[in-house]
Amino acid sequence: MRNMRDIKDEVRTALDNRKFQDLKNILASLNEADIAELLNDAEDEEKTAIFRMLSKDTAANVFADMDSEERRNLVSLLNNSELSSVVDEMEPDEAADLLEEMPASVVSKILAAASGDTREKVNALLKYPDESAGSVMTTEYVALEKDTTSTQAIAWIREHGDEREDIYNIYVISEHRRLLGVATIRELLLDHADHRLEELMEKNVISVKTTEDQETAARLLAKYNFTALPVVDNENRLVGIITVDDAVDVLQDESSEDFEKMAAMVPQEDTYFTTSVWGHAKNRLPWLLVLMLASIATGVIIEKYEDAFSAMPVLVALMPMLMDTGGNAGTQTSTLIIRGMAVDEIRLSDFLRVFWKEFRISIIVGVILGGINGLRVGLQYGNPMLGILIFVTLILDIVIAKLTGACLPMLVKKLGGDPAIIASPLLTTAVDVSAVWIYFEVASRLLHLA
Amino acid sequence: MRNMRDIKDEVRTALDNRKFQDLKNILASLNEADIAELLNDAEDEEKTAIFRMLSKDTAANVFADMDSEERRNLVSLLNNSELSSVVDEMEPDEAADLLEEMPASVVSKILAAASGDTREKVNALLKYPDESAGSVMTTEYVALEKDTTSTQAIAWIREHGDEREDIYNIYVISEHRRLLGVATIRELLLDHADHRLEELMEKNVISVKTTEDQETAARLLAKYNFTALPVVDNENRLVGIITVDDAVDVLQDESSEDFEKMAAMVPQEDTYFTTSVWGHAKNRLPWLLVLMLASIATGVIIEKYEDAFSAMPVLVALMPMLMDTGGNAGTQTSTLIIRGMAVDEIRLSDFLRVFWKEFRISIIVGVILGGINGLRVGLQYGNPMLGILIFVTLILDIVIAKLTGACLPMLVKKLGGDPAIIASPLLTTAVDVSAVWIYFEVASRLLHLA
Repeated sequence: MRNMRDIKDEVRTALDNRKFQDLKNILASLNEADIAELLNDAEDEEKTAIFRMLSKDTAANVFADMDSEERRNLVSLLNNSELSSVVDEMEPDEAADLLEEMPASVVSKILAAASGDTREKVNALLKYPDESAGSVMTTEYVALEKDTTSTQAIAWIREHGDEREDIYNIYVISEHRRLLGVATIRELLLDHADHRLEELMEKNVISVKTTEDQETAARLLAKYNFTALPVVDNENRLVGIITVDDAVDVLQDESSEDFEKMAAMVPQEDTYFTTSVWGHAKNRLPWLLVLMLASIATGVIIEKYEDAFSAMPVLVALMPMLMDTGGNAGTQTSTLIIRGMAVDEIRLSDFLRVFWKEFRISIIVGVILGGINGLRVGLQYGNPMLGILIFVTLILDIVIAKLTGACLPMLVKKLGGDPAIIASPLLTTAVDVSAVWIYFEVASRLLHLA
Repeated sequence: MRNMRDIKDEVRTALDNRKFQDLKNILASLNEADIAELLNDAEDEEKTAIFRMLSKDTAANVFADMDSEERRNLVSLLNNSELSSVVDEMEPDEAADLLEEMPASVVSKILAAASGDTREKVNALLKYPDESAGSVMTTEYVALEKDTTSTQAIAWIREHGDEREDIYNIYVISEHRRLLGVATIRELLLDHADHRLEELMEKNVISVKTTEDQETAARLLAKYNFTALPVVDNENRLVGIITVDDAVDVLQDESSEDFEKMAAMVPQEDTYFTTSVWGHAKNRLPWLLVLMLASIATGVIIEKYEDAFSAMPVLVALMPMLMDTGGNAGTQTSTLIIRGMAVDEIRLSDFLRVFWKEFRISIIVGVILGGINGLRVGLQYGNPMLGILIFVTLILDIVIAKLTGACLPMLVKKLGGDPAIIASPLLTTAVDVSAVWIYFEVASRLLHLA
């Protein structure tokens, strides 16, 4: 593989010298995902020049692979008839994704100029809610009746497969389009006795409803190692399929979204670089503000114990260690629980098992950390009572942090929210309050500071 | 789909009443991934009873789908000849994964009883380093010579495809097994003019070396929407392929690993429930201990300013708000950078762009949060200078936190480490030190407390 940087230089040279045949040759040697990357980074005039040099078919695939912001940019540089012919060539699910990003007036102009078939398929997809299985499915699949033989099916696919996004899964349907079973092209090809589909097909079909979450669909596909998953309506009629490449994108996007939520951000649709400085600020401010105001609570508790730390200022110096350790211990647990629920390893019904497990873990972790640090503090300050204070408070702190880290995400899920919001930052702030309160309460009693 | 719980009850009833035909029927109606789930949750005697009822072929696939701890458990209940026949049926890559978990003495016994062909393939895979492309690849692919026509290729696949894990990608090789191109079964089926593979194939093949990271391979496969990715040796000879289902597993595992590292844990191979209480404690203690000791540094700085906060105790109450906000602001940035580098959106060469972008974002965020909180503090305590202190410190704090959150992960990557370790906890601790120092320095000067 050549370096992308070299390729970009070659493209620029060809464009500058108007050597269009050279440019064509370079583009022909590239994969569609690479051309998309090239377009993402190109200047406006370069973008249109390169794009107009692509075959319609390639242009459609390249379009689908581009970053959404750069694609919006390119759309604004093309005329409607150019856009319509690209949309005609795109898979309907990708065309629908693209059109969802554009203003309604542009969408209707583009669709008006596109073919009737495209218009109908894209409109059907546009009606499903965002992030639902229906919104990511493709309608270009192979569906045949149960009496078709494998020879007939292969012949049908060789004749019509051209217009289908996926020809590797053959869905078997009743006369009312109800989903009866699924067979793979592999099974058809390896069948030498010309069975009917009814005899070959897997009858226990795993499918999702159009309204189900796209993440649920993607995880099912991953769990069963499918290359496509059928999508049905409420009457179990086949309406589309989700292909594995789309499922992989969904899984990656959902993971990125969880990372962002867990770091107290509003998840962003675009990439780091395509999001503007103001866009980033807007995504980051809301949670920072909420958390900043929440942490005032910790301050209020500290103010109550002014007498205690005025009498013994070293108590203040030990506070960050205590708060950080509690926050970190809780974050470990909440992260495992949130991730475990996301990949469906941990369910709400496991609550007691999780609680009991975290309780035992936190006792072990608390005793070891409390022991080490209690000993250090006791020796360093020559005050055994201070050592005991740290020992006791760290244990309580870690137990409470880990149990809170286990309960809060499960509670949020139970209430129908997204557990990812209870990740590190919110949890740390919540645990800080109890950590500081326990610390000063125990200190007042143990060191007689009240 | 029936509920898994109902199915488990039916299985138990059938076993208790020794109704083995019923059990066979239930198992026949289930998908392999579901049988694996059933086995994960079954008691020991149930496990072996169910497992022995499966066909060898099904048993091999079910085995591959089980949780590793439960699988180890089942392995200990089976005898070596049973194990060998299962290993014979497994895909070589999955057999190698399984054998890697077992003691060397057991491995050699099982392999000795397995067929020579299996032994050779599995041994070849076992030599690749853990988490390399070579260790997850399968050697059951279709490779044909460039002069084969599409009709011949289809006929060959119909004859021999049975033993290949993937028949959807046809790799075209030279007489020395050098990789020349790739065609899909789709292209072969839709080719009505009986071209030679050389004319049909994509010549610009994307491949990985056996020694490359499995994550790199999985991301390439996801980027280019492939169903398989060829793996080559140093002489560009085809030695295996990575299939999309394995790539999906790799991506999910790598995401889980990143979540765990970012929450200051040693990543675990097993699931939440299959890891013991001691195992969890052992994964969580090292970083908690390091971070706890690191946060002593913050305490040391605080001790230096004892005079300042003794003179003005409210300074202590405002500390958590300041430390939390800095930590959270830095976490947002480091999470975006770490994730961006993981999915290859951000590269080391983007350092200056990232730095400049984060600088501008942090100024906006800092001024807004500092303004709001400075105003609140100034009014609440009736002390404008205290308000100004909070305003100035929050801005400096957020700028430093975000720039540190951008630089540290990139520095760790530059040094060849895994940037995920610089996530929330370590960053928060690092940022705390500067936050506290700036706060008391500015306070001493502004409020004349020194």
